[in-house]
Parts: sequence; structure tokens; C-alpha cells
Amino acid sequence: MIEQVYKQIEITGSSRKGVQDAIEHAISRASKTIHQIRWFQVTDTRGYIEEAKIAYWQVTLKIGFSVDDPGA
Amino acid sequence: MIEQVYKQIEITGSSRKGVQDAIEHAISRASKTIHQIRWFQVTDTRGYIEEAKIAYWQVTLKIGFSVDDPGA
Amino acid sequence: MIEQVYKQIEITGSSRKGVQDAIEHAISRASKTIHQIRWFQVTDTRGYIEEAKIAYWQVTLKIGFSVDDPGA
Amino acid sequence: MIEQVYKQIEITGSSRKGVQDAIEHAISRASKTIHQIRWFQVTDTRGYIEEAKIAYWQVTLKIGFSVDDPGA
Amino acid sequence: MIEQVYKQIEITGSSRKGVQDAIEHAISRASKTIHQIRWFQVTDTRGYIEEAKIAYWQVTLKIGFSVDDPGA
Amino acid sequence: MIEQVYKQIEITGSSRKGVQDAIEHAISRASKTIHQIRWFQVTDTRGYIEEAKIAYWQVTLKIGFSVDDPGA
Amino acid sequence: MIEQVYKQIEITGSSRKGVQDAIEHAISRASKTIHQIRWFQVTDTRGYIEEAKIAYWQVTLKIGFSVDDPGA
Amino acid sequence: MIEQVYKQIEITGSSRKGVQDAIEHAISRASKTIHQIRWFQVTDTRGYIEEAKIAYWQVTLKIGFSVDDPGA
Amino acid sequence: MIEQVYKQIEITGSSRKGVQDAIEHAISRASKTIHQIRWFQVTDTRGYIEEAKIAYWQVTLKIGFSVDDPGA
Amino acid sequence: MIEQVYKQIEITGSSRKGVQDAIEHAISRASKTIHQIRWFQVTDTRGYIEEAKIAYWQVTLKIGFSVDDPGA
Amino acid sequence: MIEQVYKQIEITGSSRKGVQDAIEHAISRASKTIHQIRWFQVTDTRGYIEEAKIAYWQVTLKIGFSVDDPGA
Amino acid sequence: MIEQVYKQIEITGSSRKGVQDAIEHAISRASKTIHQIRWFQVTDTRGYIEEAKIAYWQVTLKIGFSVDDPGA
Repeated sequence: MIEQVYKQIEITGSSRKGVQDAIEHAISRASKTIHQIRWFQVTDTRGYIEEAKIAYWQVTLKIGFSVDDPGA
Repeated sequence: MIEQVYKQIEITGSSRKGVQDAIEHAISRASKTIHQIRWFQVTDTRGYIEEAKIAYWQVTLKIGFSVDDPGA
Repeated sequence: MIEQVYKQIEITGSSRKGVQDAIEHAISRASKTIHQIRWFQVTDTRGYIEEAKIAYWQVTLKIGFSVDDPGA
Repeated sequence: MIEQVYKQIEITGSSRKGVQDAIEHAISRASKTIHQIRWFQVTDTRGYIEEAKIAYWQVTLKIGFSVDDPGA
Repeated sequence: MIEQVYKQIEITGSSRKGVQDAIEHAISRASKTIHQIRWFQVTDTRGYIEEAKIAYWQVTLKIGFSVDDPGA
Repeated sequence: MIEQVYKQIEITGSSRKGVQDAIEHAISRASKTIHQIRWFQVTDTRGYIEEAKIAYWQVTLKIGFSVDDPGA
Repeated sequence: MIEQVYKQIEITGSSRKGVQDAIEHAISRASKTIHQIRWFQVTDTRGYIEEAKIAYWQVTLKIGFSVDDPGA
Repeated sequence: MIEQVYKQIEITGSSRKGVQDAIEHAISRASKTIHQIRWFQVTDTRGYIEEAKIAYWQVTLKIGFSVDDPGA
Repeated sequence: MIEQVYKQIEITGSSRKGVQDAIEHAISRASKTIHQIRWFQVTDTRGYIEEAKIAYWQVTLKIGFSVDDPGA
Repeated sequence: MIEQVYKQIEITGSSRKGVQDAIEHAISRASKTIHQIRWFQVTDTRGYIEEAKIAYWQVTLKIGFSVDDPGA
Repeated sequence: MIEQVYKQIEITGSSRKGVQDAIEHAISRASKTIHQIRWFQVTDTRGYIEEAKIAYWQVTLKIGFSVDDPGA
Repeated sequence: MIEQVYKQIEITGSSRKGVQDAIEHAISRASKTIHQIRWFQVTDTRGYIEEAKIAYWQVTLKIGFSVDDPGA
């Protein structure tokens, strides 16, 4: 772990169900091109309202991964 | 959307169940007097403890809505 | 309540299930030695990834309790 | 308390005497139209100088109250 | 000025032209219902892009006014 | 002073009289178990309202003391 | 919009004319390789001085775009 | 007022009596060399403890004044 | 540049025209006494309203210059 | 690691030599009573001057450790 | 320099020796794929402890480079 | 110490060697005109890169000194 250099990027995922599902959606999509994601930190939690109900949730994450990952 | 002017206010909702329920409670109550809420952002998440258990959750939101809403 | 002096400390709990379970785990463990926890505030929400999935969640809380608590 | 939804607003009060008097002035004025103020938090403390003396103090507060209050 | 109590609110204005026009639009709209606006502070400057060009600007302001204003 | 290692903790004191009295109350109570408090920094000033009057003040402090203090 | 995952990056543009021109320059350059930029947020505004005059302006932006954009 | 350019500096005053006295001490001392101080903003409030009592208070202020003041 | 030590100060300029003019006014005035200003950073943008119109703009800048400048 | 609950505390170490030595001093002292320190984060770096030279450095750290540590 | 558009990214380097070595390690690794790095800013300094000693240091940097760099 | 009023200013020093040398350079230069510097606090640590190596370090400090110092 000491030889590693990590990079952090910021992504935003959405979900009609809730916060946890929006996070999982964002991680799942980012993992398609970045293979060595190690951690995330929630930096913003929002929602959009339609007709007085929460239409979808939107969660912004900082994710960290090794820069030796070829998809980074 | 470009002609609109929005106003943001801060509200706090509570729930015995959890974070998501507290947010839905706050949005539902605010929608009684403000008809055009468009989005919210979570700004604080707290809980109150009774006898070593979480008695209720309390979530503070910034909500945004059109100032042309007659209930604003 | 006015005569009370409170102390706040920062703790971090984990869970394979999600944010709410990690918070409950942290409160439950802290309550073993601190008997008069009154409230908590979420200050950081993170997760660790293994093989493109969330392996566990990690939530940091500020918790407040009376300094007259003998376990504090 | 759990069924309540709270709203927070920001107000600024002034006084020739000092910080505490400026806060009491602001709370007193706000209470004329908002009947169920529960708490306040000081967010800014300023003063204005005339001829090398403090002419008046100006304190900004975030105040919280129930949205069921008819004057809110 | 010392007898006055001020209230601050947060509003967002938009413009196809630029930052200054978005601010003027927000102040102009807010002045229809709030007669004694004294100052504003810019808290956020954003823009939305369509086909690689800035479609419109969106500026968020904190505005301050006397609570004795009947339109507040 | 150079050989010393200090610890900082966060405490909250209350008072019906005002900010200064709430701080003195918190320092006095903390000094019963921590003998070598050296300084404090005010991090939050709040108040609770009952019937449109300030019922009590609540001030949060970060306090610093030597870790060689047996009561720390 | 709900199925989308967004990425945010930070860029800095410059201009001899002013803030708005520096922003347009940055967006225009970023759009060469990122095709689906949706929004930006200004995070820093600076200027460099030569012989007591502003030689050029430098504006830093956070920009958001879909991660399905092949140029991202 | 529009033609004026202001400068802000940061100073710290102390007092054995309390916060307000420490502020007045700082303003009084600064006024000896800066003749056109217009306002101040409190940025930090601290105290130093000796034998479990507050020995002195220390308040840090940002103060603003006209740069046309010959003593600035 | 490596041998240089820089000092940063905070100034505020005003203008009836707009943000850019207020900045240029502040830089121009500061350059009368400080000859080697190198850069500035905008830290606050405000405006004052008279009769529902922006009477003047007020922009606060952090400016940096060499301490070898005799006018610093 | 998932079953663990961590606690974070803030400590300050000093050194006549420099930043790194002050950190090592603080960790070494804290380890006498807390056996399972896992990580630290630097939150403040200061120094004290005597006769125009740095007399000693003072570094504040947040340190994290398991609450199952009997010395915590 | 005025025609350039810069991009900022966040990376984290580690070292058993200390802060400066961790920064040099991160810059060295990033330079393999990004050829025109111009500056960095330290945003976080941490360390990990094993058996009461600092096992390795971890420093997070924001680095800036020209977007015309083919390796960016 | 209680009768003293302190002033804080912000300076930036550079060095080809590292952080500590840049700080010592800044303190040494500031001490030529300010005789009673008491403390400093690091507020920013940066570096500039040339050909993939750190060409020089740049550290910004807040320094505090007595306003009774004739060189202040």
C-alpha cells in the first residue's frame, strides 16, 4: 500500500429509491472503467421534487483509486 | 426556467424510522404551503438518544422553490 | 438541563448493511461505557470497495453526553 | 416534538449597549410575528465605530421555530 | 439604523447575458414583494451549458432587508 | 512548555444569565476532573427561547490541557 | 437524467478582457474533448497585475458532465 | 462612500473582565494609529485559565478602515 | 522569484458600474502606495440597494505583493 | 476491521527541531495510555518565535484508535 | 500563459520517511502520464501507526497542469 | 501580556530545499521590519514544478506580533 499513488475524483449518482441506491449506482458505473476503486466519501446529498414527492435522489461522492489502474 | 427566480429556505424534519423518512416528512409538510418545491439539499443529520437507543432522527434541508409560488 | 455540562466526542462505526446500521452500531458500542448519551450528529459518511462492490460503510459521529456520567 | 417540522431563518439585531442586548432586541422583534421561536445560534458579531468608539453592535442569528406557527 | 432588525434570505436569479444581469434580475423580482432591500452578497455563481455554449447563468444571493417591511 | 503534550476536548455549558456565565460554568465543572486546563476557544453560542424570552444560553468550548494531568 | 452518472472536474481559464471571457474560454477548450458538459460552478476568481494594471484574469470552475461521454 | 477604498486588518485584544472589554481595548489601541476605523467583525474568542479560573479573555477582530487614512 | 517574500492584504473597492470596475478601482488605489502588486483573489462580492436598484457594488480582494516594495 | 468502533481525539505536540519531530513526540506520548492508535491527521501547524528565530514548533493532530483499547 | 487552460486533479502519495518524500513520490508518479505539471497544493497530511510508531506518511495534493498535455 | 494588542498579517516565503526552510526564510525576512513577532500559523503549502521535479516550495504563514512594535 505504501508504494501506491492514489487519485481522487468526484462523481454523482442518482436513484428513484434513495441515498444508498444512488451511491451503489455511481460506484457500479464508475467500476466499468476504473478497476481498483478503494473507497468513497459522500460530499453532497440532494433530491428533486415533482408534484410534492421526491422524484429522485442525487448523491455526490469523492472516490479514490490506484493510479496504476489502466482504466483510471 | 431562465425567467424564474428561486428562493431557498432551511427546514428540519424528524422521524422515529430514519433519515429518509425524516426528509420525506419535511418535504410533505413544506408542500402544504409551498407548491413549487423543486429540489432539496441535506445540510445536517442528527439523532436523539433515549436509554441507549435512537429515539428519533432529525434532518435539516435547504429547499428551493419558485418565488412566483403564491404560498412561498 | 440548564445545570448540566455536556461533553462531545467523535466516534466512527462500521456496517456491511448501510449508513443507518453503522450509526446504530457506533451508538450501541459507545453506550457500554457512556450512560447518558443525548444526541449525535453525522460528520462523515464513507465506504470501502472490494471487487467493485461496497464491502462496508463507515460513519463518523459527534456524540454529546452529560459530564456527570461516570463512564464518560 | 417528533411530529414537528421546524424552519430556520437568519435575522440581525443591533444595540448601543452590547452583544447580549442586540440578541435580545432581535428575538423580541421576531417574536411579534413568529410565536413559537425555540432556539437561536449566533452566526456573526460585528460593531460599527464612530470617532474611535463602538457606536453600536450588530449580531446575526439563525433562529428556529415550528412551521405550524401561524406567524411564520 | 440601530433600532432596525434585518432579515436575510437566499434567492437565485438567471440570465442568458451574464452574472451582472442575473443579479439585477433577482433583485428586481424580489423588490416586487420586499420593499426595503438594503444589500446583497453573492454566494454562488453557476452556468448551464447547451451544445458547448453557456445557455444561461445562475447567481445565488443572500439579500438583507428590514423586518418592518410589510412585504417581507 | 515545549516538553508538554496537550489534549483538546469539546464541552458545552449553560446559564440563565448570559454567554460569559455559561463559559465560566463549563470551565468550573471541567476543572473538577481536569486540573491543568490552559485555554479555551468558543466554537458555538446558542440560546433557547420560552415565551418569547431567552430561557437559557448554551456555549460550546474547545478546551486544552496537559495530558500529564491525572484527571484528563 | 436519473440513469446518468456525472463526473465533476476542476479547470482554470484565463482572459485579458475579464471574468466572463475567462469562463467562456475554459468551457470552449474543455468542450473539445468532453462533449456533454452540463453545468459549471465558479470556485475561484483571480487576476495578475503588471505595472499597476490587471494583465489577465484567471477563473477556476468545477464542471459537470455525463461519464457516458466518450471524451471524458 | 462609493469613492472610498477600504483595508481590513486583523488584531487581537485582551481583558481580565470579559469579551466586550477585550474588544473595546483592541479598538481603542488601534485607533491611536488608524483614525478612520469604520467597523469590526469578531473572528475568534478565547480565554486563558489559571488555577481553574479565567485569567484573561482574548478576542480577535477583523477591522475595516479607509486607505486614505494617513495612519493606515 | 524564489528569493522573494510576499505579503497579502485585504482591500475593498466600490463602483456604481459593476464588479470589474470595483476591482480595477481597488487595484488602482492600492497601487499608489504599493508598487509591486502581483496578483489578487476575489473573496467577497456585495452590492447596496437604493429604491430597488443596485446603487453600488463592493468587491473585497486579497492582494499579494513583494515585501521589498518600499510602499508596503 | 468492520466490527471495530473507533474514537478520534485531538492532541498537540511540540519540538525545537521541526514539524515531523513534534508529530512523533505527540504520537509517542499518546501511545503510553492509548495502545491501539491507527492513524493521525494534521489539523494545525504553528511555531513560536523568540529573538527572530523559531523557538519551537507546535503541531495539532486528530488521532484515531479502537474504543476497545483499555487505555482509551 | 494567458492562452492556457489548466486542469486540477487530486492525488495521494505515501512514504515511510516523511511528508516531503511522500509529496515527491506523488509528483514523480503523476509525471509519468502528465507531462506539464506546473504546481501542487497540499490539502491533507496523514500518517498510519503500527506498534506506536509512524509506519508511513500519506499526503494528498491538488496538482495543476495544462490541458494541452497529451497525457492528461 | 494582557495589556498587549496583537496584529496578524499574512506572508509567503519560498525555498528550493523544502517547507521548513521556506518558513524560516519568511520569518527571517519579516523580522527585519517587525521586531516582536511572537508566533506563526501555516495556512497554505504549495510547490512549483519544472521538468517533473519540485523547483521550489512556497509556504504561506499568518504571523502575530505586538502593535507596539515600531516596525509594524
